[in-house]
Amino acid sequence: MSEPLKSYIARVASLVDDVIMKEVAVGHQGLRDAALHYVRAGGKRLRPAIVFLVGEGLGCANEAALSYAAASVEILHTYTLIHDDIMDRDTVRRGVPTVHVVWGEPMAILAGDLLYAYSLHTLLKCVELGLDVERVYRMAKELTRAAIALAEGQAMDMDFEKRSAVSLSEYMAMIERKTAALFEACGAIGAIAAGADQKATERIKLAMRYAGLAFQIVDDILGITVDTEKLGKPRYSDIREGKKTLPIIIAVERSEPSEAEELLRILNSDSKTEESIEKAIRIIENCGAVDECRKIAREYASKAIDVIESIEFANEGRKELLKELINFIVNRGY
Amino acid sequence: MSEPLKSYIARVASLVDDVIMKEVAVGHQGLRDAALHYVRAGGKRLRPAIVFLVGEGLGCANEAALSYAAASVEILHTYTLIHDDIMDRDTVRRGVPTVHVVWGEPMAILAGDLLYAYSLHTLLKCVELGLDVERVYRMAKELTRAAIALAEGQAMDMDFEKRSAVSLSEYMAMIERKTAALFEACGAIGAIAAGADQKATERIKLAMRYAGLAFQIVDDILGITVDTEKLGKPRYSDIREGKKTLPIIIAVERSEPSEAEELLRILNSDSKTEESIEKAIRIIENCGAVDECRKIAREYASKAIDVIESIEFANEGRKELLKELINFIVNRGY
Repeated sequence: MSEPLKSYIARVASLVDDVIMKEVAVGHQGLRDAALHYVRAGGKRLRPAIVFLVGEGLGCANEAALSYAAASVEILHTYTLIHDDIMDRDTVRRGVPTVHVVWGEPMAILAGDLLYAYSLHTLLKCVELGLDVERVYRMAKELTRAAIALAEGQAMDMDFEKRSAVSLSEYMAMIERKTAALFEACGAIGAIAAGADQKATERIKLAMRYAGLAFQIVDDILGITVDTEKLGKPRYSDIREGKKTLPIIIAVERSEPSEAEELLRILNSDSKTEESIEKAIRIIENCGAVDECRKIAREYASKAIDVIESIEFANEGRKELLKELINFIVNRGY
Repeated sequence: MSEPLKSYIARVASLVDDVIMKEVAVGHQGLRDAALHYVRAGGKRLRPAIVFLVGEGLGCANEAALSYAAASVEILHTYTLIHDDIMDRDTVRRGVPTVHVVWGEPMAILAGDLLYAYSLHTLLKCVELGLDVERVYRMAKELTRAAIALAEGQAMDMDFEKRSAVSLSEYMAMIERKTAALFEACGAIGAIAAGADQKATERIKLAMRYAGLAFQIVDDILGITVDTEKLGKPRYSDIREGKKTLPIIIAVERSEPSEAEELLRILNSDSKTEESIEKAIRIIENCGAVDECRKIAREYASKAIDVIESIEFANEGRKELLKELINFIVNRGY
């Protein structure tokens, strides 16, 4: 990542974290600590960076309103992490124990619920910060639409764990909801904040949908190739949970029938050993599935960049950083 | 309940249920069924009735927009029921098995999350139905403020289960958030839809806060006095869960020290027998705590009605029905 992009993201992260810490100010300390646990533990703030790059790129100069809009997206994202970790029984995230491990499931459910409410609450404050109420209304519609999609995507993802095999198109429909919808909303929220017209907003949404798909596919790859320390969570948890990620789907297609069968048998088994997991990884890697996934992710990133190229930006510098951000998403190693 | 109020509530319930069934239209059938489970199982639709009575009472003639606004509140309420049932490990509600019992905890968490998103989504649709965007923005602010309070109230309620005793003022602070905040939002949303000014809106909110406090106290009483069939859930579940409801708090204050001690010992025990629960009920009833609770609930209802009296309504008929609704809340037997 270039120095300009690094310092841009650092600036956004600082603005957004200030808003989150100020706004998520519920009196109940345990609830507040549970809600802020992942925010304090780190994270890349990629979604807020998209809101800012699109917003400033298309000409929004209201930094305070963009900070609140970007914070609302990060708060929504954080709520989904807390609830997903309960559902997936994950125990470590961002290098720290998950919220339900520390505070118990009831408080973790509630911490997510609280963040959900704060997400909208924070977005609505953009009106007080000088953004036109009509724009904030449209931004809120984008955020709630994404929130609906996120829930459906997670339901599909959980279904897939219980199914023996999943098709590529089913997988794409799932990650469109689970991941791409929120990236899309980030683009839309930035564009609407800047007063972009319907057409430009739709173009931005399309670009960010592609970027979101690329992001999730890379996430799937990293779950297989990167070690625990860099991931901030246990290696191979996707395989342990029987998730039908893209490397799996492609490996099942590309491997010899006997190996494809063994891969699915391991994945769908309730009693996975370290040995069987290593075996699954070998099958995935040997058939070239990881490389194929990287290729698909790069194609989506390239589509995203092409669409961005076709949009007129008020600030060309921001446009370049946005394109670089998408390249970072697809080439990142963690 | 008078025939006019009965038929008014039936009309509101029908309008609101139509909106919920139409809007909560996520493609994933299991998720949709889980989300709509309690809506289909019944319920009184008291909160939507408040939105309508206040809205129409203060002069809003946009029935479609009021239906969507009222539905958004009922959807939010339904989400809290689903999540609260998981946290409290309740197994029956409205005479049917709870959502997590039927669909499992992960899907129940998700069904609640989905409804949360739909709640705001449904409210925002009021703009498309002709309500001024500025009003809808203010209504959304009221809804998110209530949602934040609900989460905090539930956190306090859970804390209280773990504490040996709770004071009256702590209890009141808890139910203000857990229950009264949403009643308050119902009043505010109806008033704002009708274009009420700040002062009238605040008066309505105050009245509905009192009504919400009365509602929760009566709910606490019914948990002790009413049988399972009428309640739609197992009798004495508050006591089984060690909840510090108002009858308990008052019984601890009013009983002989030895009885108060025994009551708390039973309540805080992890291994309650049917016999010990019956004993607790006897202590509560013998000291007059239930009558005292009824008195307090009636005082709040009477305060609510006094405030409503002081507000000018465009439709006096609706004002009368609203007052009757509050009397119903405090005198209901289930």
